[in-house]
Amino acid sequence: MQAELIFTGTELLLGEILNTHAQYLGRRLLALGIEVILHTTVGDDWERLAQVLRQSLQRATGLIIITGGLGPTSDDLTKETVAGVLGLPMVVDEATLRSLEEYAAGRGVAMSEGMAKQAYFPAGARILPNPVGTAPGALLEHQGKVLVLLPGPPGELKAMFEEAVVPYLSSLVGRGPVICSRVLKVTGLGETGVQQLIGDLVEEQAGISYLARPGEVHVRVSARAPSEAQARQVVADLLGRIQERLGDYVFGFDEEVLEEVVGRLLAERGLTLALAESCTGGLIGARLTSVPGSSRYFLGSLVAYHNRVKERVLGVPGEVLQSCGAVSREVAAAMARGARLLAGADIGVGVTGIAGPAGGTPSKPVGLTYIALDVPEGSLVREYRFPGRREAVRQGATNAALNMVRLYLLRGFSG
Amino acid sequence: MQAELIFTGTELLLGEILNTHAQYLGRRLLALGIEVILHTTVGDDWERLAQVLRQSLQRATGLIIITGGLGPTSDDLTKETVAGVLGLPMVVDEATLRSLEEYAAGRGVAMSEGMAKQAYFPAGARILPNPVGTAPGALLEHQGKVLVLLPGPPGELKAMFEEAVVPYLSSLVGRGPVICSRVLKVTGLGETGVQQLIGDLVEEQAGISYLARPGEVHVRVSARAPSEAQARQVVADLLGRIQERLGDYVFGFDEEVLEEVVGRLLAERGLTLALAESCTGGLIGARLTSVPGSSRYFLGSLVAYHNRVKERVLGVPGEVLQSCGAVSREVAAAMARGARLLAGADIGVGVTGIAGPAGGTPSKPVGLTYIALDVPEGSLVREYRFPGRREAVRQGATNAALNMVRLYLLRGFSG
Repeated sequence: MQAELIFTGTELLLGEILNTHAQYLGRRLLALGIEVILHTTVGDDWERLAQVLRQSLQRATGLIIITGGLGPTSDDLTKETVAGVLGLPMVVDEATLRSLEEYAAGRGVAMSEGMAKQAYFPAGARILPNPVGTAPGALLEHQGKVLVLLPGPPGELKAMFEEAVVPYLSSLVGRGPVICSRVLKVTGLGETGVQQLIGDLVEEQAGISYLARPGEVHVRVSARAPSEAQARQVVADLLGRIQERLGDYVFGFDEEVLEEVVGRLLAERGLTLALAESCTGGLIGARLTSVPGSSRYFLGSLVAYHNRVKERVLGVPGEVLQSCGAVSREVAAAMARGARLLAGADIGVGVTGIAGPAGGTPSKPVGLTYIALDVPEGSLVREYRFPGRREAVRQGATNAALNMVRLYLLRGFSG
Repeated sequence: MQAELIFTGTELLLGEILNTHAQYLGRRLLALGIEVILHTTVGDDWERLAQVLRQSLQRATGLIIITGGLGPTSDDLTKETVAGVLGLPMVVDEATLRSLEEYAAGRGVAMSEGMAKQAYFPAGARILPNPVGTAPGALLEHQGKVLVLLPGPPGELKAMFEEAVVPYLSSLVGRGPVICSRVLKVTGLGETGVQQLIGDLVEEQAGISYLARPGEVHVRVSARAPSEAQARQVVADLLGRIQERLGDYVFGFDEEVLEEVVGRLLAERGLTLALAESCTGGLIGARLTSVPGSSRYFLGSLVAYHNRVKERVLGVPGEVLQSCGAVSREVAAAMARGARLLAGADIGVGVTGIAGPAGGTPSKPVGLTYIALDVPEGSLVREYRFPGRREAVRQGATNAALNMVRLYLLRGFSG
C-alpha cells in the first residue's frame, strides 16, 4: 500500500516550526509496511488544499493523510474542505457534541460556535477520538481510498494515530510483503564507539542505520520479507548479534525510554530513589516522573541551585563548598548522601556541574560534571565532560545519572 | 513574490531524516520578502518529480526551488529531469569540468562518469558554485519564472543559498512588495478564549492566525507592503491592537519563552524564587534553569513526590496531609511556604496535582491541580483542572505556575 501526506499550516511554510509529522508518520507507516510516496505542505489556504487533494485523489495512492486544521477557530477548515472536494455534506456527531458540551460545562464556560464546529464531520466519516485534546479526527473510505484527518499539535496527532489509526491500517495491510523495523537504544557510548563495535555488521547488512540522539545512539534494524513472521525473525536475529556486541550499553528497545527502564528495575527490586540536582535543575526528576506509577520508587529531588540550599537543606558542609567548590567530587558525594538520608531512600544520586555558557574556568570548564551514587554499600563519584551547549550538557548529565542508577541495579555496587 | 519548494530524497519520505531545509528556506525566503506557498516532497522518483514540476510550472509562482539529486550517483537525476520538463538539452560547463578534473587529479583518482555528470547542466543555466562540496547548483530563468536547483546536504545547501542565491533574489525582489511577520504569545487563555477577544480583528484582517502550543496560544501577524518599513509598521499597529485586547494574557513575542520572561522580571526586581513541586516532578525547575544566568534568581526546588518528603523536608504537617489529602489547597499552601522559608527566598511556589493516568477519584479527578504562591504579602492558592493526559497535565501545571509568578511580578499581590 502507498500513502500521500498533506500537511496544512502557514507556520510550516514560514519556517516557524519544524515539520516533525513528516518524519514520525513516515517511520510509523513504514513499520506498518506502507510506503509514503509524496508529501505536500499547504498553508491555511483552503482553495490550495482543495486543489492538492483533487490531484492526490487522481493518483493511485490508497491512503491520504491530512494533518492540521481541525481546531475550533475560523481558520480551521480541513474537514469542510475535504467534504467540499468529495461532495459530502457536513453532519453533526451527537456523541462528540455532547462530550464537548460536558467539557465546556465542566469548565463553567458557554459552548462557543467554534467549539461546536468540532462536532461536525463529512457525512459517513468514522470519528477518531482525541485522547489529548478536544478536536476529534476523522477517517473516510471513499471510492477505494482511505482519507485520514489528524490534528496538528504533535502530541494529539501521535496519540490519535497510535490509538485509532494504527489498528485500522494494520488490519487493512494484513496481506502483501511486510517491512519490519525495530530500534535498539544505547547510552554511555557515542556514535563513533557504536560504529567501532558493529561497523562490520552495518557494512554487511543493508537494513542497519544509526541515529544520534541527545545522550543516546539509536540503531535501527529493518527487514522486508514475504510474511511478518519472517521479517520479524530476520530483525530479531540481527538485533541479537548487535546486542551481543554492545552488551550493557544497550538499555532498551523501540519506544522504551531510559527513565522507564530505570523505573522498572527499581520497582522489581523494591528500591527507592532520591535525587539532589544542581546543574540539571530538576530535569532528572522530571524525566523519572514522566513515567506513570513512578511514585512507587521515586521519593523526591532536591534541586539545590543556590549554595544556600545545598548547605541548609542537603547539609553539604559550608567548608567543603568553600574549599572544593560547588562543582567537585566532594560536593556531589555530599549531595547524594544528603538526598538519600533526608528522603529515607535506598539510593541517593547527586549531580553538580557547569552547564554554561558562563561559569567555566580553565581547570573547571563548561561541561565538567560530577555524578555521585550513594547506596548502603558505599559511595561512588564519576567525573564527566559533556560536549556542547547548555542544554546538551544538561541532557548528557541527566542520561549519565539515570544510567549510573541502571548499571548499579544491574551489576551491583562496584565502587 | 511567491515560491514553491520541491524536496527530493526517499530518506525524507521514509522518515529517516527530518526535513530541516523546509524551515531554513521558509525563514530565509520570508526575510527576503518571498512567501512560500507550497512544499512538495518526492522520493528519488524522476517521473514523479517531472509530474510535480509540470504542475508547479502551471501555477503563478515566480520561484521554484528544488533540493537534492545533484550528486554523482546514478539516482541523482534532478538536472536531467528539469531539462526534460523544460525541453532543454544538457550541455557541459567547461569550467566546472576542469575544476572536477583538478579535484580528481589532486586526489590521485580517475575521473568517473558519475563525477563528470556533475559538469552537465540544462542549456542556459547559471552555474551556482558549491563552496562546501563538489556538486554545483543551477539557476534557470524560464518563461518569467526562476528555477533554482540546490544540493541535498544541509551544509552545502545553506552555503550555496547564502552565497549565490540570496544576492540574486535580493536584487530580484528589491522592487516588489515585502512581507513582515511577528508572533505574539499568550498563556492562561485557550484558543477559543483568544478568538472571543480578537475574533473580529481576524475576520477583518487577512494576516492573523493562531497556533495552539502546550499551555500557550501563539498569534501570528503578517503584512505585505511595498517597503519593509511599511510592512513592519502595519504589523506593529495590528500587534498593538491585539495586545490591547489580550492585556496581561500576552507574555511575550517571537522567540521569547515564558521562563525567560519570568526570569527577566525576577532579575529586574531583584527577587528570588524557590519551588516545591509534586506532580510536575521537577519540570518547573528544569524550565527555569534552561535560561542561562538563572542562578541569580532561582534558588532551588523541592520535588516532594512522596508524602514523607513533603512532611520531613517541607514541613507540611502530617495531619494536614491526612485530613485534606496530598492534592489540596492546604497542602499546596504549606508546600509554597515550606519552600520559601527553607530556601530563604522572596517567593515560594507550591504545586500539587493528579497527573494520572491513575490516582483520580470522582471528587478529585485526573488534572485537578492546586498552585500556591507564598510571598511576604500573603498566600494565594488557585485551583486548575488541566485537560488531557499525564504530560499535558504536567505541562499545563508548569505553565500555570510560571504564569502565576509572572502576574504577581507584574501586578503585585491580589490574594
